[in-house]
Formats: sequence, structure tokens, C-alpha cells
Amino acid sequence: MTLRFEVLARDGLARKGRITTPRGSFTTPCFMPVGTRAAVRTLDTADLEALNPSVVLANTYHLMMRPGPEVVQRLGGVHGFTGWSGHVLTDSGGYQVFSLDPKVDDDGAVFKSTYDGSAHRFTAERVVDVQLQLGSDIQMALDVCPPSEAPAPVQRLAVDRTAAWAARARRRFLERGGPDAGAAQFGIVQGGIDPALRAESAVRTVEVGFEGYAVGGLSVGEPRDQMMAALVATTPHLPDGQPRYFMGLGDPIGLVECVALGVDLFDCVLPTRLARHGTALTWEGRLNIANSPFAADDRPIDPAFPASPVARYPRAYLRHLFNVDEPSAARLLTLHNVAWLLALMDAAQEAIAAGSLDQLRAEVADAWARPAESSPR
Amino acid sequence: MTLRFEVLARDGLARKGRITTPRGSFTTPCFMPVGTRAAVRTLDTADLEALNPSVVLANTYHLMMRPGPEVVQRLGGVHGFTGWSGHVLTDSGGYQVFSLDPKVDDDGAVFKSTYDGSAHRFTAERVVDVQLQLGSDIQMALDVCPPSEAPAPVQRLAVDRTAAWAARARRRFLERGGPDAGAAQFGIVQGGIDPALRAESAVRTVEVGFEGYAVGGLSVGEPRDQMMAALVATTPHLPDGQPRYFMGLGDPIGLVECVALGVDLFDCVLPTRLARHGTALTWEGRLNIANSPFAADDRPIDPAFPASPVARYPRAYLRHLFNVDEPSAARLLTLHNVAWLLALMDAAQEAIAAGSLDQLRAEVADAWARPAESSPR
Repeated sequence: MTLRFEVLARDGLARKGRITTPRGSFTTPCFMPVGTRAAVRTLDTADLEALNPSVVLANTYHLMMRPGPEVVQRLGGVHGFTGWSGHVLTDSGGYQVFSLDPKVDDDGAVFKSTYDGSAHRFTAERVVDVQLQLGSDIQMALDVCPPSEAPAPVQRLAVDRTAAWAARARRRFLERGGPDAGAAQFGIVQGGIDPALRAESAVRTVEVGFEGYAVGGLSVGEPRDQMMAALVATTPHLPDGQPRYFMGLGDPIGLVECVALGVDLFDCVLPTRLARHGTALTWEGRLNIANSPFAADDRPIDPAFPASPVARYPRAYLRHLFNVDEPSAARLLTLHNVAWLLALMDAAQEAIAAGSLDQLRAEVADAWARPAESSPR
Repeated sequence: MTLRFEVLARDGLARKGRITTPRGSFTTPCFMPVGTRAAVRTLDTADLEALNPSVVLANTYHLMMRPGPEVVQRLGGVHGFTGWSGHVLTDSGGYQVFSLDPKVDDDGAVFKSTYDGSAHRFTAERVVDVQLQLGSDIQMALDVCPPSEAPAPVQRLAVDRTAAWAARARRRFLERGGPDAGAAQFGIVQGGIDPALRAESAVRTVEVGFEGYAVGGLSVGEPRDQMMAALVATTPHLPDGQPRYFMGLGDPIGLVECVALGVDLFDCVLPTRLARHGTALTWEGRLNIANSPFAADDRPIDPAFPASPVARYPRAYLRHLFNVDEPSAARLLTLHNVAWLLALMDAAQEAIAAGSLDQLRAEVADAWARPAESSPR
């Protein structure tokens, strides 16, 4: 196995773990910032190094369209291209492609590029090939990702195709030497918000056999209680000794609640997107930096998080930069928001080890009392 | 005097100098990046600290409009507001205001804010007061800045009013305790491209008596030879023992040619504006990062400048970031371009000390053989 997972501590269903790959090891639960186009939006690799996330995500779809997998491969994969030496996870592209109204059959999906309208075909095999060109450390099998409100027959078909594509993706990954290249591959569980279908999809994905398992197709607009119910129906069927990745979730309450259910990995564009809209994650909840009370506020963005990479700047200055459209405002808030979520996951690891996760959940719920907005990814 | 200038070395008319203020000392010739709204566009203060310019410029007009001088003052001036501990120079706002079609009389100029259309009045005294609130180290007297193609009577009136406003600005600056606050004040020479008027304006500005002298109203679209002729007519009338500042010039050939005529300080938005349009300053001349030959180019942006802060990134990656509209592209090219100009000025200092400025001029002219574009500020 190119990926090993050890449980270091437990608190209820939650676990603190360690993932080890040929690239190195890191502890979980952890949040993976999204570097859509081989960059976390507004940040460069030196910024990332300062933030020091364990894993950065990159989007297979976007890199396949621009600059193309051949270019990335020639530059030494995502690592050589960007200079990032930490772990890289590439998604399957399924989420993007299924938002583009593709033509889908049992073989794959045909869609038009959002960049230039050109037609492309995604198959389980093609997505493996592209990810091997990108050279990521953790690669995702192509899944069918229907809208959460899709009717039962659509969800059923999605689960069936996802299982079939998982088997094909795994075969291709092994044939093409994925493990020799040091890569691990995760399967994705679908099934919408139907607990029975979720359980079935989990079982069938595990039957294929991957280094880890993701829960996809949730946090896409469905009510939070239905999302949690679907997760609860899934996790018992995932191996305890392998990592579990909840795709597309990044709100603080959602993160700690899913950690409590035994999830290890998360990604979301929430912290970076909120930052570009002037919203900071803080221990006082969401802080909209444009608000007038901050006009002459000399306090840091989150006094309860003195380790913020932008703690040196008074709120008044950050507000000014945002209000006069300085591009640095989005970058500084992005640095803060990513650092804040990374620190929250560090706190979760410590809480699990100390047996005090319930206390952290209560603190987060208290700070973030307002109902969580749906978290874009 | 709150500003002392020593000549450390000469090469023809060029001088290597040292400026010392209560804030510290730095050597000249030097290029001052423009932090229009209390930030160099796309950069934050930590970026600036890494670039380590001796002086950063901020625009009095912009900070007066947003967030207002009272806010900046409450936060501790530009230094407290931004956290920048190096030198800050604030301009007079004259250049901005005279581009807004103001109503001008002997007392001052009335103009409408580009932010919200509100009406404001600039006088020699008001501009001093605002700069003292901003707390800059070097402050500029309000000048009248007509277009270079303005007819002779307009240039004459501009020189007369600039001289009268200089005297009023100096009186106000001394009355309001500018020197006690550690600030220095520079007067501005006008006179368009008429050598006689330039000489007269220089003499009248020096008669008022400032810590340094700027040459304004040039590099605003006039032919380069006329610009140089106007400069040649000016500098003999400026004290040898005080710094000379050419406003709004930033192209490499222009910089070294003006250094050769004895100019010590420069500012320009050229390096930052070019960066946002994907153009890098290099020892191969202008490099447009969007060009297709760079698609898989693994070389750094300027192989002849290995100290570039973005030398770690292959051109292919920078091109990709620019082509997919990642905001980091503009920031990375800004970091490079500012660093490149700062290094060019360091090279000029070394060349003056070594008596080899002519060789540097030839090298720059060779690398930048194409006719210089007019340099925006």
C-alpha cells in the first residue's frame, strides 16, 4: 500500500490519525485547501509553505483544460509545476463535469469545456491517466455526482455507475503503475440523501478496494440534518483502518460535527471564497470586514487567534484595503481563513487526544451560532 | 534639517548619495515603489519588507478620500496603519487633482472626488495639514501640474502659482511643526518643456528653501528628448548638496539616463502596472508572460536576475497563472518588477562608485533597445 493510516487516539467515533505516504506523513483530521488551478486562489506556493497545510487539492478538470496535463507532466507534475513539496490530492473532475450538463452513458461523460467550448470525454480510465500525468499523491476515482434533489432512479443509476467506474478506475490505476509512482487512490461513495443507497454505495466501493474512501455528493445544498443522516449511514461501512474524506465541506460547525462521526479529511473552497467576499472566519463567527464599525478598529482580525498570519494588521487597514479594491485584501483574508481552519483542525486533533471533543464542538457551536450557510466547493 | 544628504561618490554628473532622516538612512539613487492607497497594488507590508525598498510612496489624494486622514492619523499615520517601518513619501496630490479638471485660482483647486463625486478643496496649507496627519517622512508641497502640451501662458501661470504655493506650503509646514514631527518637505519644479521656464521655476523653488527638490510635470507623454532637455535645464539650479527627485519615471533606460544627469530619487507605477498586464522587466527587455513560447518553459522569469523573488517558479507556471486569471500572477510579477528596478538602482550605485555608469547605461540600452513607452504614474 502506498498509503498507511494509523489511529493514534479516539474520542467516541472520532479519531486522531496519521497518514503516511512515500511523500511523508501527516496527522488527521485535517482540512485541505483547494488549489483549483494549481494555486490556492490569491496565494502562491511560498504563501502555502507558510500556512503549511498537510495536503493541497488541485482540480483535475481545470488542469486538464488549462494548461493541459502534458504541460504539467513536462514540468514535473503539479509538484514541479508549482514548487509545492507537500501532499497533493487531485479530485476526479466528476463534480465539475456533472455541473456542465454532460451526456452520460455507461462508458463515461461528454461535456463542453467552460474555457473554450471544446468537447471532451471523461471516462474512468481517462481520469486515471490524467491524474497520473499530474503526479498527485492521492487520486480520486471518477464518480457520478447527481444533484442532491435528483429522483431516486437517478441516484440509483449514479450508484451503479459509480461502482462500475470505481472498478475500472482501480484496474487502470494498478495497470498503469499508480502504486509504483507513489500514488494512492480513493473511491467515492454516492447515494444522495437515501441512507440505504449510501450504505450500499459504501459497501460496493469498499469491495473494489482503495487506499481510502470519500463521501461525495453531499454538502451540495441539502438540509444539514439530511446530510448528517447520509453520513451516519455511510461511515459504519467504511474500514476503520483507512482514511475517510468528506468532500466539499468547510464550515466550522460542519467540520467538527463530521470529525465527531469519524471523518479524517475535508476540502472546501469556503474559506477562500468567503475571503474574496470580505468575510473572515473568527471565534466571534463570521466577520464582514467591510462593516463600518471596523473603520478605525485597531484590533487584529481575530483577537482569539493571535497566530493568524495577518494578525499584524489592524482591522481598519484590512477594511480599507477591501473597500478600495486592493487585491491584497482578498489574499490577506484568504491567508487568515485558511490558517483559521487549519488551526481548528489542529484543535480537533488535540481535543480527540484529550477526550474533549464535545467541549470543542460546544465552543464552535457557540461562536458560530447562526445557521451554517451551504458551503460552496 | 530633518533630512541630510551626503554625496558618497561621483561619476560625471551622477552621484551616489546617502539620505539620513530621523527614521534612518539609505543610499541613492533609488527607486520608490508607489503604494497609492497605502499599499503597493497586489502587495502587503510583509511583501514590501521582503523587497526592502528604502522609501515607499503613498498618494495624499487617495488617502484623503479613503479612508480619510483622520482615520490614518488615529491608527498612527501611514506607518501605524500599514505596519511599514521604512521611509514613506507622500505626494502633494497635485498630479491627481489636476487630472480631474479642477477649478483653480490663486488660493487653491476645487475638484470632485473620483470615489463619490463629493467636492473638495486643495490649498497649499490643506495639503501640508493632511500630510502631517498621514505622518510621512518626506512630504511634497502642492504644485500646479499642467499637461505638457499646455500653451505657454498656462505654463507660466503654473510656475508662478507653484512658486507662491511653495512659499505658503513651507510656511505652514514650519508653523505646524513639521520638522519637530521628523518630517522633511520637498518643493516641486514645474515649467513644462520650456528650458527657460524650468530654470526659473528651479531658482524660485530653491529660494523658498526645502530639504529636497523634485522635478514634476515631466514623463507625462512628451517626447523623451524634450523631457531630457527640460531636466538638463533644471538640475544646474538645484543645490548639489540636496536630493533631487524625478517624479513619475520608471522605465529602465529613463532611470539610468536621469541618474547620469544627477537625479537621486524616482517613483513610478510602471513596474506594478506592467505586472498587472503580464509584463515582466528583464535583462532581455520586456517579457510578456502570456506569450505562447513560454507555455512549457521551465526557465525562471529572468535568468540574468537569479535574485528575483519569483525565480523559483518556471515561466510556464507564471504564464498559466496569468492566463487563467489567478490573482497571484499579478502579485508575483509585481514582486519581480519592483525587485528588478530596485536591483537596477543598486547596480547604478555600484557603477557610480566604480566610475562605470556609462557601461551600465550601455547594457540597459542594449537590453531595452525598443523605444521606451511613455511611463504612466
